[in-house]
Amino acid sequence: MLSSLFNPDSVAVIGASRKKGKVGNAVLSNLVKDFRGNIYPVNPGEEMIEGLTCYASILDVADEVDLAVVVVPAKVVPPTLEECGKAGVKYVVVISAGFKEAGIEGAKLERRSLEICKEYRIHMVGPNCLGIMDPVAGLNASFAASMAYEGNIAMMSQSGAICTSTLDWAEANGMGFSKFVSLGNKADLGENEFLAEFRDDPSTSVIAAYLEGIKNGSQFIEIARDVSRKKPVVLVKSGRTAAGSRAVSSHTGTLAGSDQAYNAAFDKAGVIRADTLEDMLDYIRAFSTQPIPSGRRIAILTNAGGLGILTADACYYEGLELASLSGETIEGLREFLPDAASFYNPVDVLGDASAKLYGDALEIVLKDPNVDGVILLTSPQAMTDVTSIARIVIQKMENSDKPVLCSFVGGTRVMEGNSILVAGGVPNYTFPERAVASMGALCDYGERRSLTYPLPKPVHSDRKMASALLDEAAAKDKKILGLESFDLLKAYGIPVVETGKASTVEEAVEESERIGYPVVMKVLSPDISHKTDVGGIRLSLMNKDDVRRAYHTMMSDVGRYMPSARITGVQLQRMIEGGREVIIGMNRDVQFGPLLMFGLGGTYVEVLKDVSFRLAPLNEKDAHSMISSIRSYPLLTGVRGEKAYDVDAVADVLVRVSRLVEDFPQVLEFEINPLMVLPEDEGCFAMDMRLTLKESN
Amino acid sequence: MLSSLFNPDSVAVIGASRKKGKVGNAVLSNLVKDFRGNIYPVNPGEEMIEGLTCYASILDVADEVDLAVVVVPAKVVPPTLEECGKAGVKYVVVISAGFKEAGIEGAKLERRSLEICKEYRIHMVGPNCLGIMDPVAGLNASFAASMAYEGNIAMMSQSGAICTSTLDWAEANGMGFSKFVSLGNKADLGENEFLAEFRDDPSTSVIAAYLEGIKNGSQFIEIARDVSRKKPVVLVKSGRTAAGSRAVSSHTGTLAGSDQAYNAAFDKAGVIRADTLEDMLDYIRAFSTQPIPSGRRIAILTNAGGLGILTADACYYEGLELASLSGETIEGLREFLPDAASFYNPVDVLGDASAKLYGDALEIVLKDPNVDGVILLTSPQAMTDVTSIARIVIQKMENSDKPVLCSFVGGTRVMEGNSILVAGGVPNYTFPERAVASMGALCDYGERRSLTYPLPKPVHSDRKMASALLDEAAAKDKKILGLESFDLLKAYGIPVVETGKASTVEEAVEESERIGYPVVMKVLSPDISHKTDVGGIRLSLMNKDDVRRAYHTMMSDVGRYMPSARITGVQLQRMIEGGREVIIGMNRDVQFGPLLMFGLGGTYVEVLKDVSFRLAPLNEKDAHSMISSIRSYPLLTGVRGEKAYDVDAVADVLVRVSRLVEDFPQVLEFEINPLMVLPEDEGCFAMDMRLTLKESN
Repeated sequence: MLSSLFNPDSVAVIGASRKKGKVGNAVLSNLVKDFRGNIYPVNPGEEMIEGLTCYASILDVADEVDLAVVVVPAKVVPPTLEECGKAGVKYVVVISAGFKEAGIEGAKLERRSLEICKEYRIHMVGPNCLGIMDPVAGLNASFAASMAYEGNIAMMSQSGAICTSTLDWAEANGMGFSKFVSLGNKADLGENEFLAEFRDDPSTSVIAAYLEGIKNGSQFIEIARDVSRKKPVVLVKSGRTAAGSRAVSSHTGTLAGSDQAYNAAFDKAGVIRADTLEDMLDYIRAFSTQPIPSGRRIAILTNAGGLGILTADACYYEGLELASLSGETIEGLREFLPDAASFYNPVDVLGDASAKLYGDALEIVLKDPNVDGVILLTSPQAMTDVTSIARIVIQKMENSDKPVLCSFVGGTRVMEGNSILVAGGVPNYTFPERAVASMGALCDYGERRSLTYPLPKPVHSDRKMASALLDEAAAKDKKILGLESFDLLKAYGIPVVETGKASTVEEAVEESERIGYPVVMKVLSPDISHKTDVGGIRLSLMNKDDVRRAYHTMMSDVGRYMPSARITGVQLQRMIEGGREVIIGMNRDVQFGPLLMFGLGGTYVEVLKDVSFRLAPLNEKDAHSMISSIRSYPLLTGVRGEKAYDVDAVADVLVRVSRLVEDFPQVLEFEINPLMVLPEDEGCFAMDMRLTLKESN
Repeated sequence: MLSSLFNPDSVAVIGASRKKGKVGNAVLSNLVKDFRGNIYPVNPGEEMIEGLTCYASILDVADEVDLAVVVVPAKVVPPTLEECGKAGVKYVVVISAGFKEAGIEGAKLERRSLEICKEYRIHMVGPNCLGIMDPVAGLNASFAASMAYEGNIAMMSQSGAICTSTLDWAEANGMGFSKFVSLGNKADLGENEFLAEFRDDPSTSVIAAYLEGIKNGSQFIEIARDVSRKKPVVLVKSGRTAAGSRAVSSHTGTLAGSDQAYNAAFDKAGVIRADTLEDMLDYIRAFSTQPIPSGRRIAILTNAGGLGILTADACYYEGLELASLSGETIEGLREFLPDAASFYNPVDVLGDASAKLYGDALEIVLKDPNVDGVILLTSPQAMTDVTSIARIVIQKMENSDKPVLCSFVGGTRVMEGNSILVAGGVPNYTFPERAVASMGALCDYGERRSLTYPLPKPVHSDRKMASALLDEAAAKDKKILGLESFDLLKAYGIPVVETGKASTVEEAVEESERIGYPVVMKVLSPDISHKTDVGGIRLSLMNKDDVRRAYHTMMSDVGRYMPSARITGVQLQRMIEGGREVIIGMNRDVQFGPLLMFGLGGTYVEVLKDVSFRLAPLNEKDAHSMISSIRSYPLLTGVRGEKAYDVDAVADVLVRVSRLVEDFPQVLEFEINPLMVLPEDEGCFAMDMRLTLKESN
């Protein structure tokens, strides 16, 4: 789709300059250095720049221009884009700053620019960006210091400075790119368009991104999920915290969603979230060179016991398994390793091991069917021939389909070995834990890639009834609905506890008879919030007499404790025993829509914050994983010989709530609290609910 | 104490060799290169090595020898040490391998070597080590590739290869050392002796260590706590996990304590535990050059918004506070920064900032009384003069007593700036999160250093009675004591619930009258473990009649459910209501002694593993911090308007338990479960206990 953005036949630089140090000069020089198509500098004040004829306007260029790089002042950008439109330009990269990031005036300019682009069907990168690169096509349409090396990593970044830092780091560390995009303010083209582009780009095998926000959340999930099945997507999303988010808003004015929602979104999309830029660079080095392992069983090969222990520790924390080497492997190692070596995992070839010994050990370990990947450690000890070890690692890897990550731990004496490894396509990390974390990312991706995402089964619902109920509330300007709106749950097949209302003692008896005993009676009053404190709750009423007595004593108790309270009657509810309380909640995230929450009731949520989040829509698998991912999950499955609760029924309610809140975007917040879960096969019942409606506009 | 180890007048190399590549040659060459005192090669087969007269035996050296470096085969080490003893040598560094790490025979050789050392009052480093260095004194008594740079960091490592890797890394990264010790098998001198030595060494200001185990746990805590008050101690302790620990035992045969106990020990000692070697190197770079901040309020200064956000995120996770800049600072920044800059924290000087602008901003931010430390970020953008920024940072720091850590994020284009910073004594980290973590370590140390460690108040106890009780159990070969031994708790002033035993109905009534109502009755039988299941528990007995009825029905119920059970009678206990159950436990750690555990009862411990650990002895502050560090602590202090419980009483019990288990080393495990805590000022009561005694030998 964006092929003539990255591989245009002709490029114009509008605002080209002859002055060294000017962005308009840097962009042009970069293009001249590598680009093989036609280049048209545009600047009304110049005749020639860098040996090229300069044009007063893009309209003066006779040739068709595929891509225009715009480096004129912000104010001049809209008319410039207009000219581009008239000249039939298909893509523009607006490097100029002074737009949304600069305040209200800038935001207006940005909106105007976007309108013009839409009118002329131009696609725009930026504004306020460093530019773009396609090292494969030889296009450097940026003011970066130099062209990136060619490689198979497509990277995009919402921060121009992080582009610069990454490119500089990559140059020093031999990392190459297939595409490099500075997203800037993402007025038009954003992460979603580039994700789709990178997915279909044959020169790209890994996608990396630094993002501060996401433009269209649900589209992002859809695209990223599809892309992730084909290529790993590793991203850093900054502004994770309140502190960080403040910096985001002053930086690019992006409306940041909550970090919980982002995590849920990345999880749903199968995207690998890196916590730091360093992690991202570590992971993509592994992805760009190594095969994806088929399991998490890792072998460690080392010439230093201490490094082996540190690596084993790190594997444990990363959730990687130390492979149990097969008997054959152990016997094989015994044949040529010295007696003092360790033949078990970590395999310690000892400090004086030759490169040949290392190579033989690596070969045999890679062949072990119990091993899914290898981490190879080297300390540059007295007898250690680091460069030969590097060479032999590369040689042994050629015939293997398992990933090998190296950690040659040192400085000066491992430098050459490091260069050999990098040139040979084996990532080397200065410290073992970084190799372990990267191996973890490979394994995670291996697992995610093979996941399927079945659509939720359809939920049978009486949507019309639900809609009428919500419309009625809106008409009455009612913003908060409570358990008097249980019909909404019923409409979606969510079981609710039998409930009734009465304003006389005889009504109370009648309702109780209908509900069935035992019942609970609660006073209804707009003035009473703590019912227990005023004697406003009666439990375990077993028959008519109990109900009558309860009604009379409650009225007199409440009247005595709170003579001023207006009493509208009592609520009657079937009393449910032997269950466990859970909470199902929903908050509508601005970026990603309904974010569902699950947790055990009471202190588990309130004190221990032991909850899980998922984005709608939920299928049953999602619902089950949501339930099982809280720490207190064992309390639902039966701990210490206690009974197990009906987790399937809870999962079913989660799926139905997901459907309900998706059907009605006017529902801002939603909570069933508590949902009483009975023992296995006995179901669950909503005991109370609370729902907040959007202000109608 | 060890001064003539590190700064000897004369050194012998026993096992010196003329063959390049041999350890005996490497050690001698290293000495010859830098050492200014006398060097005596010892090797019966040579006359001259490296231009020095070679001796057949150390006994032939006429001069007094302070230090002998031993590189002969393991078998020859004991006679060699014997000769050293006779020659009056004070210190030996045994580089030779083939000792404890090599198996039973080696372990014998090691024990023999140690005996000889003790006999002749020789102190030994190693065996199985790389050697030692004192770059300040010009001593390189090791077979390392080269001498370390001089600096103020004293480092010791239990792994020779990690010495090698660290030295090589340090050389490439301009890190210098005051002392460098490869500990090897630590047969004689270990971490405790060197900690004490480094504390008193005027050239050392930071201490770093890589350890796989600790030899004398309680001595370590005592020494490290004292050292930590004067100089930061940063250490990596590997073998943290089950997987890692296996690797440890095959590596050096160290008996590793549990990681929980190590954490508790490091905490008690005020030592900073680094999770990885990389973290350790990061932290010590900061400690070796920067002042300790007086608070956690950090200012971020950046030329790149994206880096600022990432750093703010990291500060949040690290528990650092983003400083609120004073009005004066903000006004000051406004005076010279461009309008588009950010004057709030993170302060963004913008991508085209000059070095002067950076410097002026740094100066003003450092002066802000709301700022305790600064993290300065630089992305090498088009206009960025990285080297000038590095120079100006060093200049501005000179007049400040606040730490500044830099992160120049890039590769090639930040290299020179990095070198300038390092040479100028400002740590630079390739990625901002590493600067943040290091700042966190500085802040943590600042807080720990000022902590006081009051001794526990004396506990009034009837130690004689407790001793008699335990002796009696031992005499009867009783290994497990239950609540029948409540007298032990009473002897230490720990309140226990009134409890009695009865084997007839009338005894039951009598006991109940003594205890006071309500009481709980439980069947006593060696055959019944689940009392509830057989009707063996009766709650809320309010008077004599209740007790009689309960006794009779219990006997008949239990008889019916479990006719074969031998019933020895019933237990009667005062029923305590309105309390919350907590658990106090103790396990005796092999390295560090009594490790106390605290948690809320039931699922909080069993399912959520929400517990805290501390090593005895506990003072009241320790006990309170132990209680408040569990996640579910709010449940004790009153959440959602609930009452607060008597935390002071629990703390008091913790202190008493600590005293009790310290007084009686024969107590291997100990648990009060549950301890019932009543509302504030109402105390707490042990409801049950369990104690395991050591096998007597």
